[in-house]
Amino acid sequence: MRTLANETPSKIGSSVLLKGWVHVRRDHGKIVFIDLRDRSGLVQIVASPELVEGLHTEDVIHVTGIVAARPPKLVNPKLASGTVEIQAEKVELISKAAEMPFDMGGAELDLELPTLLDYRSLSLRHPKIQAIFKVQAVIIDSFRQALLAKEFLEFQAPSIISSVPEGGAEVFKVKYFQHEAYLSQSPQLYKSLLVGAFERVFSVNQIFRAEPSVTTRHLTVATSLDAEFGFLNSWTDVLDMQEYVVKYIFEKVQEKCGPELAMFDATLPQLPKKIPVVKLREAQEIIFQRTGRDCRVEKDLAPEDEREICAYAKEKLGSELIFVSHFISAKKPFYVYPDPADPTYAFSVDLLGRGVEWSSGGQRLHNYDEILDHVKKWGLKPEDIELYLQSFRYGVPPLGGFALGAERMTMHILGLKNIREASMFPRDMERIDLRLKTPEKK
Amino acid sequence: MRTLANETPSKIGSSVLLKGWVHVRRDHGKIVFIDLRDRSGLVQIVASPELVEGLHTEDVIHVTGIVAARPPKLVNPKLASGTVEIQAEKVELISKAAEMPFDMGGAELDLELPTLLDYRSLSLRHPKIQAIFKVQAVIIDSFRQALLAKEFLEFQAPSIISSVPEGGAEVFKVKYFQHEAYLSQSPQLYKSLLVGAFERVFSVNQIFRAEPSVTTRHLTVATSLDAEFGFLNSWTDVLDMQEYVVKYIFEKVQEKCGPELAMFDATLPQLPKKIPVVKLREAQEIIFQRTGRDCRVEKDLAPEDEREICAYAKEKLGSELIFVSHFISAKKPFYVYPDPADPTYAFSVDLLGRGVEWSSGGQRLHNYDEILDHVKKWGLKPEDIELYLQSFRYGVPPLGGFALGAERMTMHILGLKNIREASMFPRDMERIDLRLKTPEKK
Repeated sequence: MRTLANETPSKIGSSVLLKGWVHVRRDHGKIVFIDLRDRSGLVQIVASPELVEGLHTEDVIHVTGIVAARPPKLVNPKLASGTVEIQAEKVELISKAAEMPFDMGGAELDLELPTLLDYRSLSLRHPKIQAIFKVQAVIIDSFRQALLAKEFLEFQAPSIISSVPEGGAEVFKVKYFQHEAYLSQSPQLYKSLLVGAFERVFSVNQIFRAEPSVTTRHLTVATSLDAEFGFLNSWTDVLDMQEYVVKYIFEKVQEKCGPELAMFDATLPQLPKKIPVVKLREAQEIIFQRTGRDCRVEKDLAPEDEREICAYAKEKLGSELIFVSHFISAKKPFYVYPDPADPTYAFSVDLLGRGVEWSSGGQRLHNYDEILDHVKKWGLKPEDIELYLQSFRYGVPPLGGFALGAERMTMHILGLKNIREASMFPRDMERIDLRLKTPEKK
Repeated sequence: MRTLANETPSKIGSSVLLKGWVHVRRDHGKIVFIDLRDRSGLVQIVASPELVEGLHTEDVIHVTGIVAARPPKLVNPKLASGTVEIQAEKVELISKAAEMPFDMGGAELDLELPTLLDYRSLSLRHPKIQAIFKVQAVIIDSFRQALLAKEFLEFQAPSIISSVPEGGAEVFKVKYFQHEAYLSQSPQLYKSLLVGAFERVFSVNQIFRAEPSVTTRHLTVATSLDAEFGFLNSWTDVLDMQEYVVKYIFEKVQEKCGPELAMFDATLPQLPKKIPVVKLREAQEIIFQRTGRDCRVEKDLAPEDEREICAYAKEKLGSELIFVSHFISAKKPFYVYPDPADPTYAFSVDLLGRGVEWSSGGQRLHNYDEILDHVKKWGLKPEDIELYLQSFRYGVPPLGGFALGAERMTMHILGLKNIREASMFPRDMERIDLRLKTPEKK
């Protein structure tokens, strides 16, 4: 019967069988300390040199031994098992590891990002790297649980689509039997058309963007958390649902990921009772007042504007997140809902925090004739979005929704410097797992 | 404040506001009955003709009215709201629908599959079609919850891969910037390599198979439910985990999808305390004994063999599922674990039931040298699976896992005739949402 590392403090005096990896080995003459790593964390093994002869980092071993309390001054408060150590009686080698190309023992894995990714199968074994994906898994699952509690139906958004309604410069092409197809940049049209059937839907899906840029903030494949729902009373229902979901996620991350947050000195965004909302033009006025930089006629917020409005929200409103609404209709996709009070501006919303964008959403057009009118104005081909139009042709209530990026959210919560750190197997222009070779001339 | 259809029985005598679609309209002279459909189900509205003038199927409406108990003889036991009806006082049209191309009112949506898919945005509104995806969502979420309870970590399996280690006849090609890439047929190598880091992982992911066939059992894009875990004591640990997950899923579907199962006259597979296991050769001997058909030297089970061994399990062992193990090593992928007792046969397992395959799995090789040996024997290029090899080079415990198909499981539970019915937006050789046009000659 196996005991996990974090279960040992409750078994003082007992004989246990531990299974895991040699995380660190420290030789002290007649005694050897091994930090054993398993899925629950680390535990210290004390062994005679004979018992652990030849063992080194990443060897997979079984250890039988007695759980002993550590003397008070040797307790390690940073370790869940830090009050105990295991006095090894038998150590069995299960799987031998090659010599390590780098040191795994520190609190940080001190590698440049390209090296970290070249050794992804190894770097994912470091506790601090693992923490990233434990947080991410909680983000994704709590997104789903928040929406299941509100009677949203989960659906699987298609990855392969037959046409690119909004132009195809940044889309990946797929050879689909005798046809040309594409990888989906967003499940937007699918989630909206499904409101006509299920009222409330969400999906966790991969989105594919062939952006020919290598920045710290872009992945070519990202995990999108999408929600859409009908029977809005007002466009602000979208804000309320989004706020509910984001707060639910934060609560679960706080509850389940205390040690992981601590490893990154990370705190969840401080929020007031209600996340503040400003319109684009109001935000620009605030920025002008605060900085003298006049962005009041710009059609969007520049990165420095996003930083400034976040600084404002934190300083003046005590909120590390802020909604910015009412972007320019003409700069948004065809399905945006123009504000009847002034159709120049749309019921579209970005959620900003810590200087950057966290998510976007808004109310969508639901009237079939208005949609067709927009389709024409935006220069799209109706036949490219037939299934979408079909839904609205047969009656869809006022609807809206939002999308959160799982990697982006992980990055912003933990304060990671590069979004690639928040993707287990990041893809970019130069990398699919390993660095892509320069194509051969043919 | 909105009331949902299924909440009305608890509000007799109250004034309520309902929101939904006109599902069916029945005119009876001075009175009109409307079945209103919302995300919770149907409820009967009674209105004067004036109140509902011009309304027809799929119009989106708001109805204000009084909840009244139906006379006992008019109670509809098939409806959650069947004990009441709503006496309409006000009806507001929210979104007008076009004339319907077919009748939505019956218990069945009586359409040929191609038509049903051509009108997917509409056909998904039919309660019996919706039931399919409610069951599927429960299957998928309970797969995850079963594994979260066993401390598996959820990961997002990559869709785009850089090489096709096992040959590429049935793989979709993607133009990836200056490179050629592919859509993943299985997350097998990723989930296995992650055991080296997290011990226990699962993913819900799309898999892509460019099979140039149009059968009732194949999709080109399917939703795969994948699990993999380490520190096996025996290959039978894989069976135990798989059995636990499958039974957990069945339990949740039973608990949450009673009405949906009833619509399909569907029952979950009857199972004994332990799902039986037979080896391939034993299964073939049983089939020979039962039918006289001698398949005892065949390298795999033919479809009629699968049906026969399922019939045997049901009749003789009282089990609608049966594991078949010990398939021929050479016919399986390079990572299979040959049984040391006779390496001709592998620790690979299929789960069969109701005449067809439900899932597959097995123990995998974990020793680096043995893997390299297999890689050579199978004629693969080590550089194509470098990240996988990297993991095993640095120590991985004995491991195994399994994969369930979400659409396949939905199909088998509900007894659907074509797997396309179990995919919201099925893709096949001839269809991406709508039927693909014959390519133009260039």
